[in-house]
Amino acid sequence: MLIDRPDSNLSRPSRAILLFSCPDVKGIVAEVSHFIFTYNGNILRSNQHSDPETGTFFMRVEWDISEFTLPESKISRAFEPIAEKFSMDYRIEFSSRTSRIAIFVSKLDHCLYDLLLRNKEGEIPGEIVLIVGNHPDLKPVADYFHIPFHHVPVTPETRKDAEGRELELLSKAKVDLVVLARYMQILSPSFLEAYRNRVINIHHSFLPAFVGAKPYHQAFERGVKIIGATSHYVTEDLDQGPIIEQDVVRVTHQDSVADMIQKGKNLERLVLSRAVKLHLEHKILVFGNKTIVFE
Amino acid sequence: MLIDRPDSNLSRPSRAILLFSCPDVKGIVAEVSHFIFTYNGNILRSNQHSDPETGTFFMRVEWDISEFTLPESKISRAFEPIAEKFSMDYRIEFSSRTSRIAIFVSKLDHCLYDLLLRNKEGEIPGEIVLIVGNHPDLKPVADYFHIPFHHVPVTPETRKDAEGRELELLSKAKVDLVVLARYMQILSPSFLEAYRNRVINIHHSFLPAFVGAKPYHQAFERGVKIIGATSHYVTEDLDQGPIIEQDVVRVTHQDSVADMIQKGKNLERLVLSRAVKLHLEHKILVFGNKTIVFE
Amino acid sequence: MLIDRPDSNLSRPSRAILLFSCPDVKGIVAEVSHFIFTYNGNILRSNQHSDPETGTFFMRVEWDISEFTLPESKISRAFEPIAEKFSMDYRIEFSSRTSRIAIFVSKLDHCLYDLLLRNKEGEIPGEIVLIVGNHPDLKPVADYFHIPFHHVPVTPETRKDAEGRELELLSKAKVDLVVLARYMQILSPSFLEAYRNRVINIHHSFLPAFVGAKPYHQAFERGVKIIGATSHYVTEDLDQGPIIEQDVVRVTHQDSVADMIQKGKNLERLVLSRAVKLHLEHKILVFGNKTIVFE
Amino acid sequence: MLIDRPDSNLSRPSRAILLFSCPDVKGIVAEVSHFIFTYNGNILRSNQHSDPETGTFFMRVEWDISEFTLPESKISRAFEPIAEKFSMDYRIEFSSRTSRIAIFVSKLDHCLYDLLLRNKEGEIPGEIVLIVGNHPDLKPVADYFHIPFHHVPVTPETRKDAEGRELELLSKAKVDLVVLARYMQILSPSFLEAYRNRVINIHHSFLPAFVGAKPYHQAFERGVKIIGATSHYVTEDLDQGPIIEQDVVRVTHQDSVADMIQKGKNLERLVLSRAVKLHLEHKILVFGNKTIVFE
Repeated sequence: MLIDRPDSNLSRPSRAILLFSCPDVKGIVAEVSHFIFTYNGNILRSNQHSDPETGTFFMRVEWDISEFTLPESKISRAFEPIAEKFSMDYRIEFSSRTSRIAIFVSKLDHCLYDLLLRNKEGEIPGEIVLIVGNHPDLKPVADYFHIPFHHVPVTPETRKDAEGRELELLSKAKVDLVVLARYMQILSPSFLEAYRNRVINIHHSFLPAFVGAKPYHQAFERGVKIIGATSHYVTEDLDQGPIIEQDVVRVTHQDSVADMIQKGKNLERLVLSRAVKLHLEHKILVFGNKTIVFE
Repeated sequence: MLIDRPDSNLSRPSRAILLFSCPDVKGIVAEVSHFIFTYNGNILRSNQHSDPETGTFFMRVEWDISEFTLPESKISRAFEPIAEKFSMDYRIEFSSRTSRIAIFVSKLDHCLYDLLLRNKEGEIPGEIVLIVGNHPDLKPVADYFHIPFHHVPVTPETRKDAEGRELELLSKAKVDLVVLARYMQILSPSFLEAYRNRVINIHHSFLPAFVGAKPYHQAFERGVKIIGATSHYVTEDLDQGPIIEQDVVRVTHQDSVADMIQKGKNLERLVLSRAVKLHLEHKILVFGNKTIVFE
Repeated sequence: MLIDRPDSNLSRPSRAILLFSCPDVKGIVAEVSHFIFTYNGNILRSNQHSDPETGTFFMRVEWDISEFTLPESKISRAFEPIAEKFSMDYRIEFSSRTSRIAIFVSKLDHCLYDLLLRNKEGEIPGEIVLIVGNHPDLKPVADYFHIPFHHVPVTPETRKDAEGRELELLSKAKVDLVVLARYMQILSPSFLEAYRNRVINIHHSFLPAFVGAKPYHQAFERGVKIIGATSHYVTEDLDQGPIIEQDVVRVTHQDSVADMIQKGKNLERLVLSRAVKLHLEHKILVFGNKTIVFE
Repeated sequence: MLIDRPDSNLSRPSRAILLFSCPDVKGIVAEVSHFIFTYNGNILRSNQHSDPETGTFFMRVEWDISEFTLPESKISRAFEPIAEKFSMDYRIEFSSRTSRIAIFVSKLDHCLYDLLLRNKEGEIPGEIVLIVGNHPDLKPVADYFHIPFHHVPVTPETRKDAEGRELELLSKAKVDLVVLARYMQILSPSFLEAYRNRVINIHHSFLPAFVGAKPYHQAFERGVKIIGATSHYVTEDLDQGPIIEQDVVRVTHQDSVADMIQKGKNLERLVLSRAVKLHLEHKILVFGNKTIVFE
């Protein structure tokens, strides 16, 4: 009987997820699906994309491995010959493995609460293992959700040491993904190098409009009729990384900057949570400065 | 200097808000605005609406009373002659008076958290003075926000007593507005009579589609491409009260009932919070089975 | 060099599109993709869906046949063994074959213009070969676009003869799809039997709300805050057929029925055109009373 | 009895519309509404806005003048003392006066058709008296709608003469509003001076993102997940004029530039038509580089 709440993830079968890109030639899908069939897997979902400009093929395929005749630990090696044949850049993820998430915050709590609550409800998978604040203000929130909080203050002089401290925390906690939930600090290239395509930020504008500081003030000055929020992977170039998700909301001449900030909070929450969810469900491939999002 | 967060409500001037409906004749706006000017008020916002079918005029006017030459306590009496002249059904609200809110819950926490967090941030005005649960599950949430929680179990046999208990709690706490945040119980006509147009519910469908139980299951069965949520004042007729606010989100054939429930949660949160905010900002006039919402 | 207008369809390769449903077992994707690879086809797009309740698998796969080693006329026969093996309900479409479209109208022209203009621009593929009106009013529009117009009046007494006339016109013109562009007549079961899942209607409400006549009046009476439009395949049950596409727009207390009608026209246009486009691109599978739309 | 189509504008009463801005002081609404009441007008709609930064007050008031005791020709003079008292920048419009519209086009027809069809249906008021094309391609469209078409070619060398020709055409036809319906030419400062706040353009991006040429290509390159369109008054600064209306639509990695162009067409149509309608209903006040839109 259907009941009026979400299925538990526990009831879903064990799954493997293969993501790859490679030069676009004939026979890729046939070979990949044959591989899965050979070892008694059942394809649950499959998506492809071709980029005609560069002749690149992208694929994500998710299959039930509950009756797979290969153990998880041997799947990658068995797939290797196909990957080589087609010169694939690939990775294989398993639903049995729980992603480990760190959230970086400053003083604003709306995105933090949103992530914590959605994670608690099972909407966002993974385990939030760490919250880092450059201010101590949000420690009580972390406490309420029983998550370790670390106060790592950052000043121009101490930035390097602070990042060292942060990298150590991330490493010890075996963190897979860093979410900047309105964290107001810029990360150094070496930090980003260590977490390439694994740091997600929320920018409070509809990029590429209003890059940089105080985007709502910029939007107010320009007199736009719609404001937005953008979630993206962080790169060395401020607000220029691959965009994962965007959304917008209407404003009018009646909306002050304060009103825009309030309306924007809803957007920031939604857009960041969607982006984090997509990442943790292994639905994103980064290609150059763009994302391919297999929804 | 503008800073990147909302103005505190404290910095806004004291305001009076006049809401009324009356037969539509010439001169109403002139007389009302003259009244405000006479006592040295400054109109901040004014909205009108005419219903041609019934010949009814509706108005909301909000003015700065920081230099008003009448004290708040004497404004209503001074306005009385105008109200009589035009046969107005009216009320006057003051920004200095904080609305007192009770939230009724069952086991689902997403709408409760949303209301509490928006209230804490100042987006939803008023004071949440009471949370009533027919189950004890959400007491820890109430505790975290330092709000009294009362567990009032309801069974078919005890419904009458339970409502008596609830009415007593509301009365003692001088509650102005009752918000049903996914409270799964039906309220009796006598309860509703006591809080006419002061009980707001969230129904998890795009009314009038999918009245009653399990609307997401109904939506799934019908194969709709969009699902919705509706916030309305509660009346004796189930899901038939005056609609305050609605919103929708796209679904596809890929969405299971569980997915719809998850997508719907976002809608329920947003739609209920908007409706509660509009009510507490005294922007709603109820007319027959409809609302006039002066945004 | 990229130029600022759409690629011509002529420059796109010849494609075959296979659509099927069958019991969900392992190996289907492997076999289908192997079939395509064997004859030197290149998969351009592929979508799957599983219905867990009925254990049914659905797939749409589109491949480049410009270097296919089987001629179009022999593909279906070559595929037959696979279809039998998996008990598929399938069809194969070819981009080389132009769909033939009839539009039925009454007096309102907004949907008709929209379809004609999008077809002219190449957004909606196929050839509009016939316009049938139960009133003569829109003949000048047909003339302007050089499309044959037939006036087939319908009265309760002549309905049967009129439908006979219409079926003859459709048959002679080898029509694949009938679009009811605000055609105000009900079609008989025998007509619908002849064009099962090939008659698309636009209903001017967000179904299942406001079935039947005058939905905008119904919406106005109920005081909804959002109105909608729904495009669906026509079945014997009025406004109950499988939904293809829906969209909505906000209304307020300021909107009269006339305003809703005007706002609704935009919706009707957009929603009907999207549904027709999806059908003509062979992206829809009908399953029971629902659609699977592979976008 | 209500019928299922829009009320004719003819059945609506004669109306005057007063629009003004002035320093924000007490008593403005009282004086204006008293003026209207004195001469037996009935206020149908009234909107105000205050800009706290500059201390400016804005108002639009629309009233029924069918029983007004002043003839239209004398209203402005009678209002003059009030305008002086409050240092108003004001204008008075009358529903009895039909606005005269010119549309400038190049080769793309989608916005032109949209404006013509909505005007024909009465959704966009006013009379389209003139179509000017720098190419002759759209003459047949003008012919079909029985509107004079003038081919005025523009080259860098002939720009000045061409604009002279255009200004002459506009002047002869007593044009109030010039709509650039994907007209691909830049207008000179002297042309714009003559039609200050009376030239409306549609830019095919979500301004201020993607100013200038080929915005869909820019959007594609940046990998945005949403594209937009912006309608604005034209000023000397390219794509920098006061924004009237904007809207957006989702795109994905699957959308080529050609797909974006097609999706964008819908936006361009809708956004331009809404902006033109708002202008012709006298609902827009321009203030600095922003618009106040009284909807």
